[in-house]
Amino acid sequence: MSWQAIGIFDSGVGGLTVLREVMRALPQEDTIYFGDTARVPYGTKSPDTVIRYSQEIASFLVTRDIKLLVVACNTASAVALPTLRRMLPIPVVGVIEPGAKRAAEVTRNGVVGVIGTAGTIRSSAYSRAIKRLNPELSVLARACPLFVPLAEEGWVDNEIARLTAVTYLEELRQTGVDTLVLGCTHYPLLKKTIAAVMGPQVTLVDSAEETARTVSRILTEKNMLRPVEEQGNNHYFVTDVPAGFIRIGNRFLGGRLGDVYQVSLEECRLPLGEKDVKS
Amino acid sequence: MSWQAIGIFDSGVGGLTVLREVMRALPQEDTIYFGDTARVPYGTKSPDTVIRYSQEIASFLVTRDIKLLVVACNTASAVALPTLRRMLPIPVVGVIEPGAKRAAEVTRNGVVGVIGTAGTIRSSAYSRAIKRLNPELSVLARACPLFVPLAEEGWVDNEIARLTAVTYLEELRQTGVDTLVLGCTHYPLLKKTIAAVMGPQVTLVDSAEETARTVSRILTEKNMLRPVEEQGNNHYFVTDVPAGFIRIGNRFLGGRLGDVYQVSLEECRLPLGEKDVKS
Repeated sequence: MSWQAIGIFDSGVGGLTVLREVMRALPQEDTIYFGDTARVPYGTKSPDTVIRYSQEIASFLVTRDIKLLVVACNTASAVALPTLRRMLPIPVVGVIEPGAKRAAEVTRNGVVGVIGTAGTIRSSAYSRAIKRLNPELSVLARACPLFVPLAEEGWVDNEIARLTAVTYLEELRQTGVDTLVLGCTHYPLLKKTIAAVMGPQVTLVDSAEETARTVSRILTEKNMLRPVEEQGNNHYFVTDVPAGFIRIGNRFLGGRLGDVYQVSLEECRLPLGEKDVKS
Repeated sequence: MSWQAIGIFDSGVGGLTVLREVMRALPQEDTIYFGDTARVPYGTKSPDTVIRYSQEIASFLVTRDIKLLVVACNTASAVALPTLRRMLPIPVVGVIEPGAKRAAEVTRNGVVGVIGTAGTIRSSAYSRAIKRLNPELSVLARACPLFVPLAEEGWVDNEIARLTAVTYLEELRQTGVDTLVLGCTHYPLLKKTIAAVMGPQVTLVDSAEETARTVSRILTEKNMLRPVEEQGNNHYFVTDVPAGFIRIGNRFLGGRLGDVYQVSLEECRLPLGEKDVKS
């Protein structure tokens, strides 16, 4: 048994969909959520930068004494997981492997679609994870950069959202995928519109639930769960001022968001280093 | 006369529209452009965070020995200009005042519209700048968060761009504004679509040209211009890996982008500071 908390991080508020499932599956556990709201989004940034940001956040969370780290950001899961696993002495769970596992289980015709940010899709992380589970499956991937700003604008089921979904998804739909992985934590907010475009024959896979199941399994195997009669506490750290996170976060968690603290990962700013990597 | 360079910064690639106008107006001058591509965008972030990032970039550019700083980012111009002016011993030019000045000059009916990112509009910086020039003018402002991702996706004149523009601008159009300030460096890319929605009776104001004129005037007054027969050099620094910046930047500047260097403003990452500002 371990009384330590579960650490969860994301580039911003989107990973709260994963936190919500972890809280639902393991209500006895303490959680520490970290949202890098001063540098969000990660999906448009390079692997090097996303890895560096992920290392900084992992270092911070480890000083808070966590027993397991959930990388709730698809982009960070796609590019930073090997680095974080080498760096940390605790289990590190991403959202890609659980989502890939679920997709490989539910597909009937063997044609799986994956949508995500430019960074996630460029990494091919989902395709590789799915093919590792079953090399016979075909995986078709497509970046949908407008979905995150649409979800954040609250335009999830208007004509603009529908046309955008058609533009991004029509080709995938025509290839006959029967399973579509929502490879970005924001995309479940657009689930209805995405489902309407893809049609009833396509199963949508949301990684959050599957990730929570993986966390539960690992902590059970390691005998690190708290007693079920306990009630866990949930803490939140963000890098920008908390107001925006609190507003959107309460919408994600149904008003159950607790105290939110602002932290700086870049206290020491001078001397200003320079790498002079010529392009 | 001063042989020092003109420094220009933006959250990312958008400020190249301002650089282009400065290069056109003052081809004899050296320029140093800084794009904070590892932390872009600024428009969704809090004033505190944008001020901090702007200070870091200004510190870096000052070590490079510049004679004038152009804040080519509307969000940073809106919130960080007073801080930067206190901090630096050189002239600091934002994009808001030049854009406001132009709008106040061209309006005939005294009703001016302003569009920009959430951060710029929330700051009311354009409204205040326009009313300082002429308190009789009415200013109507509207945030258009989807315009930046649309411009970056290259969707500048399709049906989605048109519907988005109608959704954001219809109310402004109905109020009878005769002048519309494009208060974000990305928006000129959507100029045609915005113009079609607003109609031919509305003048669109792009701050870039006016900002270049202000730079030219200040350096002339201070007798700090290089001889006109000179040919300036243009250097670029970015915080993420340069590939994306080079690709989009060449589109902005017509293939004339020179060497791009990557720098880190956060070399010293440990110890991890914490402010514990409870919300």
